[in-house]
Amino acid sequence: MAYFTTKTTPGRHFLQIPGPSNVPDRVLRALDNPTMDHRGPDFGKLGGAILEKIKAIFQTKSHVVIFPASGTGAWEAALVNTLSPGDRVVMCETGHFASLWCEMAERLAIRPEVLKGDWRRGADPAQIEAHLRADKAHEIKAVCVVHNETSTGSTSRIAEVRRAIDAAGHPALLLVDTISGLASMEFKHDEWGVDVTVSGSQKGLMLPPGLSFNAVSAKALKANEAAKTTRSFWDWKPMIASNATGYFPYTPATNMLYALDTALDMIFEEGLENVFARHDRMAEATRRAVRAWGLEIQCDEPRHYSSVLTAVRVPEGHSANGLRGTILEKFNMSLGNGLGQLNDKVFRIGHLGDISELQLVGTLSGVEMGLRAAGIPHKPEGVKAAMDYIAGNN
Amino acid sequence: MAYFTTKTTPGRHFLQIPGPSNVPDRVLRALDNPTMDHRGPDFGKLGGAILEKIKAIFQTKSHVVIFPASGTGAWEAALVNTLSPGDRVVMCETGHFASLWCEMAERLAIRPEVLKGDWRRGADPAQIEAHLRADKAHEIKAVCVVHNETSTGSTSRIAEVRRAIDAAGHPALLLVDTISGLASMEFKHDEWGVDVTVSGSQKGLMLPPGLSFNAVSAKALKANEAAKTTRSFWDWKPMIASNATGYFPYTPATNMLYALDTALDMIFEEGLENVFARHDRMAEATRRAVRAWGLEIQCDEPRHYSSVLTAVRVPEGHSANGLRGTILEKFNMSLGNGLGQLNDKVFRIGHLGDISELQLVGTLSGVEMGLRAAGIPHKPEGVKAAMDYIAGNN
Amino acid sequence: MAYFTTKTTPGRHFLQIPGPSNVPDRVLRALDNPTMDHRGPDFGKLGGAILEKIKAIFQTKSHVVIFPASGTGAWEAALVNTLSPGDRVVMCETGHFASLWCEMAERLAIRPEVLKGDWRRGADPAQIEAHLRADKAHEIKAVCVVHNETSTGSTSRIAEVRRAIDAAGHPALLLVDTISGLASMEFKHDEWGVDVTVSGSQKGLMLPPGLSFNAVSAKALKANEAAKTTRSFWDWKPMIASNATGYFPYTPATNMLYALDTALDMIFEEGLENVFARHDRMAEATRRAVRAWGLEIQCDEPRHYSSVLTAVRVPEGHSANGLRGTILEKFNMSLGNGLGQLNDKVFRIGHLGDISELQLVGTLSGVEMGLRAAGIPHKPEGVKAAMDYIAGNN
Amino acid sequence: MAYFTTKTTPGRHFLQIPGPSNVPDRVLRALDNPTMDHRGPDFGKLGGAILEKIKAIFQTKSHVVIFPASGTGAWEAALVNTLSPGDRVVMCETGHFASLWCEMAERLAIRPEVLKGDWRRGADPAQIEAHLRADKAHEIKAVCVVHNETSTGSTSRIAEVRRAIDAAGHPALLLVDTISGLASMEFKHDEWGVDVTVSGSQKGLMLPPGLSFNAVSAKALKANEAAKTTRSFWDWKPMIASNATGYFPYTPATNMLYALDTALDMIFEEGLENVFARHDRMAEATRRAVRAWGLEIQCDEPRHYSSVLTAVRVPEGHSANGLRGTILEKFNMSLGNGLGQLNDKVFRIGHLGDISELQLVGTLSGVEMGLRAAGIPHKPEGVKAAMDYIAGNN
Repeated sequence: MAYFTTKTTPGRHFLQIPGPSNVPDRVLRALDNPTMDHRGPDFGKLGGAILEKIKAIFQTKSHVVIFPASGTGAWEAALVNTLSPGDRVVMCETGHFASLWCEMAERLAIRPEVLKGDWRRGADPAQIEAHLRADKAHEIKAVCVVHNETSTGSTSRIAEVRRAIDAAGHPALLLVDTISGLASMEFKHDEWGVDVTVSGSQKGLMLPPGLSFNAVSAKALKANEAAKTTRSFWDWKPMIASNATGYFPYTPATNMLYALDTALDMIFEEGLENVFARHDRMAEATRRAVRAWGLEIQCDEPRHYSSVLTAVRVPEGHSANGLRGTILEKFNMSLGNGLGQLNDKVFRIGHLGDISELQLVGTLSGVEMGLRAAGIPHKPEGVKAAMDYIAGNN
Repeated sequence: MAYFTTKTTPGRHFLQIPGPSNVPDRVLRALDNPTMDHRGPDFGKLGGAILEKIKAIFQTKSHVVIFPASGTGAWEAALVNTLSPGDRVVMCETGHFASLWCEMAERLAIRPEVLKGDWRRGADPAQIEAHLRADKAHEIKAVCVVHNETSTGSTSRIAEVRRAIDAAGHPALLLVDTISGLASMEFKHDEWGVDVTVSGSQKGLMLPPGLSFNAVSAKALKANEAAKTTRSFWDWKPMIASNATGYFPYTPATNMLYALDTALDMIFEEGLENVFARHDRMAEATRRAVRAWGLEIQCDEPRHYSSVLTAVRVPEGHSANGLRGTILEKFNMSLGNGLGQLNDKVFRIGHLGDISELQLVGTLSGVEMGLRAAGIPHKPEGVKAAMDYIAGNN
Repeated sequence: MAYFTTKTTPGRHFLQIPGPSNVPDRVLRALDNPTMDHRGPDFGKLGGAILEKIKAIFQTKSHVVIFPASGTGAWEAALVNTLSPGDRVVMCETGHFASLWCEMAERLAIRPEVLKGDWRRGADPAQIEAHLRADKAHEIKAVCVVHNETSTGSTSRIAEVRRAIDAAGHPALLLVDTISGLASMEFKHDEWGVDVTVSGSQKGLMLPPGLSFNAVSAKALKANEAAKTTRSFWDWKPMIASNATGYFPYTPATNMLYALDTALDMIFEEGLENVFARHDRMAEATRRAVRAWGLEIQCDEPRHYSSVLTAVRVPEGHSANGLRGTILEKFNMSLGNGLGQLNDKVFRIGHLGDISELQLVGTLSGVEMGLRAAGIPHKPEGVKAAMDYIAGNN
Repeated sequence: MAYFTTKTTPGRHFLQIPGPSNVPDRVLRALDNPTMDHRGPDFGKLGGAILEKIKAIFQTKSHVVIFPASGTGAWEAALVNTLSPGDRVVMCETGHFASLWCEMAERLAIRPEVLKGDWRRGADPAQIEAHLRADKAHEIKAVCVVHNETSTGSTSRIAEVRRAIDAAGHPALLLVDTISGLASMEFKHDEWGVDVTVSGSQKGLMLPPGLSFNAVSAKALKANEAAKTTRSFWDWKPMIASNATGYFPYTPATNMLYALDTALDMIFEEGLENVFARHDRMAEATRRAVRAWGLEIQCDEPRHYSSVLTAVRVPEGHSANGLRGTILEKFNMSLGNGLGQLNDKVFRIGHLGDISELQLVGTLSGVEMGLRAAGIPHKPEGVKAAMDYIAGNN
């Protein structure tokens, strides 16, 4: 069986999907260390150090629970730890992933109330506030928002959502999915008053998939006491208890923890603010390229632009999937596909994680040459526009 | 932060716990390949190949579901996919892990009926049969058995359990945990009539922790239709649907799949029967060493001996944990601790996965020299006994 | 101590010097296999396979000797194995490396006669022919030519040099350095009548430095019998004798041989002709970029253009080294410096080995943005010109 | 092509030849970092740090020259840098490698005068002194001694050799090969008055083969000025000049330098004295095993025992090579063969580098079980004797 790197295609694959992102060599070399005894004394030191360091990424002083499972699991954990069957929750339809989270809630016997959206921007705080105000009895238990919609390249402004909830004087918990936003865009669990933050390893943290996270507020912990949804694997309680000494209640994903530890070091060495600023620059350069091509950015609210990815609409009558196939075949680059209702209508450029300016220009050149090869009308000025921006900001 | 391999201790660490087992270099080198697009065409080929190959390990023609989560998750998956809140199940108390699975069932609102055991042997088929016969109304929905009890080094004879259920004429499902037995000892999902087999990556499959498995019979799939326990992440249905084309319904643990693919190749290259025979030899050599030391094997029913690990009782008044600490410090070897009621009373020698005769003798020499260093009464004849056995059988 | 990959700079370093070239992940993963017994039976199989496969790269049926030493050593080996102190040889001054080889010959008591050159093209066959014709007594023992001058980006047309020697009716040996040309540009040891071909690992073969090669004609082997320069480490004879069974007369660089074996497989999988064609395309795209910038290519004879690297002259009054420093600092890319008389006057873009179109555009964008940042006059149209070429030829 | 680790044989190979020794995982993970620009600013820092650190290993304040070549090259370098054709040198025939060095000298037109030996002990200082005293005219230019004879497991006491030279009042240089002794046994270049120390990477330094060393005294540097043997690749002068800023005059073996840097760190972390003491313990345990088997140690002078390896004689009428083949096949362990006149008469157990007590017992158990399998008369008490010694000294 051939993994990617054993392919004959020369040069490195450009993995420019919006996650999994490119895993740095240094992280891969941590990942492949021999597995250790997860009950031995050395492990406790490693676990303790990671559990402390990860808090800085979520900008929280509270607990961050680490699951040996991919991100979808952390979605489930957020729900089953805080809610009971039949509970009403508000969910904001910002895109495909928000919709999937909603479906998950239904399968877990929770009753989502969906605030409709057009998949071209983040959640609307006013809409949330209005909905909560209407809930005089405070039956709604939680507001669920996706911070960075990986399907559309739109972000929800979480601080504004928090203010909306507060303005409505509503006690609902705020559950936020920043699976694809964490460690790429500013995220402040404590300051923004988030109750449960959900995230994963394979995006801004620059790891392979296989770890996921819940940052948990004191209020969420209290809700946990009352929540009646059954849970065992996802249960925060034994996790938090074991974590106190650096261990886990069941076998953790040891090698992924090595990788996480190294990735955290890399982020701190660069500086979290620098990481964010770099992502902002990459995103702006990409958007300038898209506009120069004469194509449309899926997110139509500039305040909601994602710094993680840019979803680009192909002109009516053209196939985004065909374009992606052409680019993969001719230029050895993977781009993200359109999901759900955006299937074949958009392609998504990931510009997150371990990426440099030159990799970005290489990426955009692959898109530009791909547009030409696929016969999609465009002005071949995108790469130039991106370079102009980068050169002026470096 | 220092991972194991960055320690100053010279030479390789002897990781002789009963899992995670030593990950072969070849598997680590597969693990650290660049992460690929899990929705791209190459991934489908990889996924399809793995999903087919893994069936041979479970000796099944049915579905094997792979979760991007550690083994405890696959326990949960087996329960939530087949049972409803309030369902009665039979659980056989073979040791610590059987007890933990039982606690999990309770947390998931399932009602376990525990067949008591003394932690020194596998499940008793006669006891199971009697219990099922008493359930005239066939209210019991499942019998849960641990194939290889990692806490005691005892195995349950699954074919006999199956015959006991059949003899009772009872329709209960047979759920079997072989997290630590798979790919080390014979296991025949189809032939033995198992309905759900639960397993994990970090034992006989020679991978780090982070993947787990459910092999699923047609009967289990049917039960799945009726089972009312809520589920989403663990749900078999979307898994099996996506797996048909080699993909997964949510992000899989890509790099762990690389490693799995390589580990499967290694097992097939050695030959599954040869793998089992090698484990049998390692275990017999170990038991001969234990007896020569004059120590007691925790499993007191030879037909139930595990080929994966041997739990050894330390004499009354001595500390197994003290011994383990001495051995770790002086000889850079990790042994398994006694769990639950066996804490400090036994130590466990893992002899599974990627292990050779010389590594085993090195391991046993560490125990023998450790017994001496810790002042535990013994005859220093264990290594010799093991070598006599190995030399006569190689 | 921080190696490159432990730097905080995000993204992959662009190593675009004309060698060492970027080592593919697959080769690095072969390199880091555990060292084996170089006298054991497995080694003989590996050695035998490599020694056979490497012949296809040199396009020879004769011996290829592999030294556990970097390329400079293979230069020395070519001289000491075929010449005696005081021997006259012709050396063509095509650039810095030709000059260094000449200096080496002098240090080894050989008397080079230098055919002057202006460092802007390859060797002149007519000049060689004339020089040899003048040597009526056939005292000149060898003609030494650099196939691909890494300092200038010019190639010598070896088949034409051979014809020149033949036209002069001169028995001199033809010694060719293709350290940086091999496996990137066509090279035919046998067909072109080369007597000793010198090469190294860290260029087209996509390995780290540490191995070097002599391909040896029958005539060279005969010269070897007569050659009086003292030699031991470099002596072909014991090498060829040991190689017959796949072994080496002294400890080989085992891990580099693992890497070589894998690199050879990768080249054969792509197809040697495809490798050459890809290098040609990369080079042409680069030259179009250079011309579009309005800069001058150091090689001024199009028939002598190198497909491995392009040396670019900076306008009078500007510093090539300053530019390289700017690019390294701002864009995390290493370019080759000007060597010898070209110091600070040219920079060199390596486009060899494991490189793809998108990496090349990324590379060229780094140069273009660097020119801007360094204030070097240019038209910012180079990347566009390269993309136009690539898009039209892919 | 299958490298060692891709073999189907389960478990790790026991590479117990006296070098190449087992390369620690941590070193392999340094080795496989991406190759960097050997002329860039980061490289100078790396080079400078390594060149400084390596001095502590040789216990010298003088220059240590690092060649991108295996150890045989450093032998040649020692000779060609200090001697002229026709120079007389004294060489002590301590075993196969001393003989090979002597042959090399002859090929380089140097005239060795061999002090005969029986391959069962190190060099005889009295014999050296007598030989030098007889050279009234001081025509002898150097005394060449192998510190640790890898073919016999005997060491020469270098400090005593130095005293012998001084006692003779002779100005000859002292050239010492400690290819297999360095970083395993005490070696004091400065204090012992060695003029050129020759070493390599693949033994106590725990690296793959591919680097070699000359430590150079001030007196040797002076001899270098006068030495007329031609040299270029091996020439110290340009090396030392370039090294001043951390660079090398021609392409260094970059990745091997990464590995060296890491290996040096590991040695310093353990402590050089602790490394030596560990090797002494391993060697003593091995010798006790050999004696308990009733076999004969090749080195018959206890003061000359090597801590790096033990060469063991098989009884008359038995085949050491047959034994080694049996052990390789049955127990996946490589032992060293008998070299030269010792072919088939001895096997050599390497106990150097990255080795622990448990690995050593595993090794000795492979020998003991192999002796049994091969039908070689012995008492099966060797492992026990080694364990008794280790347990009493740990």
